Amino acid sequence: MRVTIYEVGPRDGLQNEPVTIPVEVKREFIRRLADAGLTTIEATSFVHPKWVPQLADADELLADLPRRPGVRYPVLVPNERGLDRALARGVTDIAIFGSATESFARRNLNRTLDSQFDMFAPVVERALAHGLRVRAYLSMVFADPWEGPTPPEQVVRIGRRLLDLGCYELSLGDTIGVGTPGHVERLLDAFAEAGVGMDRLAVHFHDTYGQALANTLTALRRGVTVVDASAGGIGGCPYAKSATGNLATEDLVWMLHGMGVETGVDLKALVATSLWLAERLGRPSPSRVVQALAKEMR
Amino acid sequence: MRVTIYEVGPRDGLQNEPVTIPVEVKREFIRRLADAGLTTIEATSFVHPKWVPQLADADELLADLPRRPGVRYPVLVPNERGLDRALARGVTDIAIFGSATESFARRNLNRTLDSQFDMFAPVVERALAHGLRVRAYLSMVFADPWEGPTPPEQVVRIGRRLLDLGCYELSLGDTIGVGTPGHVERLLDAFAEAGVGMDRLAVHFHDTYGQALANTLTALRRGVTVVDASAGGIGGCPYAKSATGNLATEDLVWMLHGMGVETGVDLKALVATSLWLAERLGRPSPSRVVQALAKEMR
Repeated sequence: MRVTIYEVGPRDGLQNEPVTIPVEVKREFIRRLADAGLTTIEATSFVHPKWVPQLADADELLADLPRRPGVRYPVLVPNERGLDRALARGVTDIAIFGSATESFARRNLNRTLDSQFDMFAPVVERALAHGLRVRAYLSMVFADPWEGPTPPEQVVRIGRRLLDLGCYELSLGDTIGVGTPGHVERLLDAFAEAGVGMDRLAVHFHDTYGQALANTLTALRRGVTVVDASAGGIGGCPYAKSATGNLATEDLVWMLHGMGVETGVDLKALVATSLWLAERLGRPSPSRVVQALAKEMR
Repeated sequence: MRVTIYEVGPRDGLQNEPVTIPVEVKREFIRRLADAGLTTIEATSFVHPKWVPQLADADELLADLPRRPGVRYPVLVPNERGLDRALARGVTDIAIFGSATESFARRNLNRTLDSQFDMFAPVVERALAHGLRVRAYLSMVFADPWEGPTPPEQVVRIGRRLLDLGCYELSLGDTIGVGTPGHVERLLDAFAEAGVGMDRLAVHFHDTYGQALANTLTALRRGVTVVDASAGGIGGCPYAKSATGNLATEDLVWMLHGMGVETGVDLKALVATSLWLAERLGRPSPSRVVQALAKEMR
C-alpha cells in the first residue's frame, strides 16, 4: 500500500504565522521538503495580500522554485485574477477553496453556499482549458463555529458539484478539528453512497482536539490514499505558543512507516527541516515526532 | 457501546512530575476526577520512596480518599512489602507491574524476564486470598530502548503468565510510545490466537510520537473496551516544557463521545480539573482538548 502526502506547510502552514517569513526562507523550506521526498508541495496562494499578507510574495517565490522530476507545486487560486497570475507564472497545478457551510461561505468568500460556484466555475473551466490540474478543498465538513454540525448530505452535494466542475480531487477539510472517527466514517459512507469513489477524495484534518491522526487512520481504512499534512504541524490557529493546527507530516509518516505503508519520505530529513524552520519561526514545532526525535538528533 | 477509562493521572502522571505535590492537592485532584465521572482511578503506588519520591505520601493519601459508590482506587504494588501496606490501608484493588523485555526487567525490577514472576506470584496469591482484585501492567510491549522491537510471541507468553497468576486484566503498555496501529493489530491478533479474549486486555498508550489515540482506536475496533489514560495528559518523560506522555483522558473522551460511545465522564468538569492541576504543576497541560476548551471556559 502506498499513501500520497499532500504537503501544505508552505501555504496552509505559513499563511497563519504571525511573523513574516523572507522569501528565501520559504524557498529553502520547499527545497528541503522536496529533498526529503515529498512530491506534492502546495507552495503558496494567490489570495489577495490584503487577506493573507504572509503570502504576498507568491510571484517572487514561484519565479524560482527548485526543479525536481516528479515534484509538483500546486498553488491556491481563489478567483480569475489569481488564475491569471498562476498562468503567467507557468503554474501547472492549482487548488480552489470552497465552503461546505453557508456561514463560512459568507465570511470567507463573501458568497452564499450556492453562489460560490459562480466564482469557481470560470476558474476551473479556464484552468482545464490550459491543461492545468485542479484540486478542490472543501472546508468545515464536520461543523463550523456558527452553525454547529454540517449535514453530511450537504457536504456531499457541494463536494460533488466541485468534482463535477472537473476537479481531479476533493480534499475534505475539518477546518476546526472537531471531528472524530465516527464523523469520518459517516461522511465517507455518504460519499460512497452518492457514487463518489475514494480515489477522488483526500482528507485534511486539524489536530485542534487531538483527533487528526485517528481520523486519518479511519479514512485510510475506508480506502482514501491521499492525506494532507503540514511539516512540523505548523499552521492552524496560533492562539497559544505551541498551538496545533494541521496534522503534522512527521506524525503521519511515523504511523504509515510503522504500518508498513510506503510514502517515499525520509523522516529524519523531514524532522531536520521542521527543526530548521522552527528556529526561523521562533517557536517549537507542535509535532510529537519532531519533539521526540529532536532529542536524538541534536 | 461503552468504554471504561482507567484513569492513571494521580499515579502514572504525578510520579513523573519534577515538583512535589502536597497530599491535599492529590486528594483534591482525585476528588475532582471522581466528581467528573471517572470510576477507576489509580490513586498511588507503594513503590519504595527511594525510587518514586513523588508518591512517598501513599499512606497518608489513602487514609482519606473520597468515598463514592462505584468508584475504585487501585494502588500499584511492586512486592510483598507493598502488599502489606495496601492491606493495612484496606485497599481493595491493586496492580502489579511487569516487563515484556529482558532489559527493562533488569533495569526496572532488577530481575530477569522469567524471575520477575518469583516476585509477583506471592503478591498475587496473597492478594487474591484476601479478596483483592489484581490487575497486571505489562510494559515495553512494542519495543524498548535497548533491545528494539519486542517479539509479539514474547509479549503473549509473559502476558499469559500474568493472567494465569489470577490477574483479572492485563494492561498492554507502549511505554516509549513508538507503536503504530499496525503494531496494535499484530499484538492483539497474537493474543487472540493464543486464546486470550479481548475482555481480559486493556491498552496503555503514550503519545510520545503522537500515536496514542490512533492506537487506542485500533484496539477498540479489535474489541478492547478498557483504556488507560491520564487527565490532562500528564506524565511520561517531561524533558520538554509541555512534553507529552500518557494519552490524555480528555482527548480520548472527545473521540469516544464524538463516536457515540458512552464513558460516563463530564468532559467540561474533567477539563476544569486539568486546568486547575496545571496551575499547581506550573506547566500547561499537553492535552489538545484541554488547550482548545481552555479558551472557551475562561
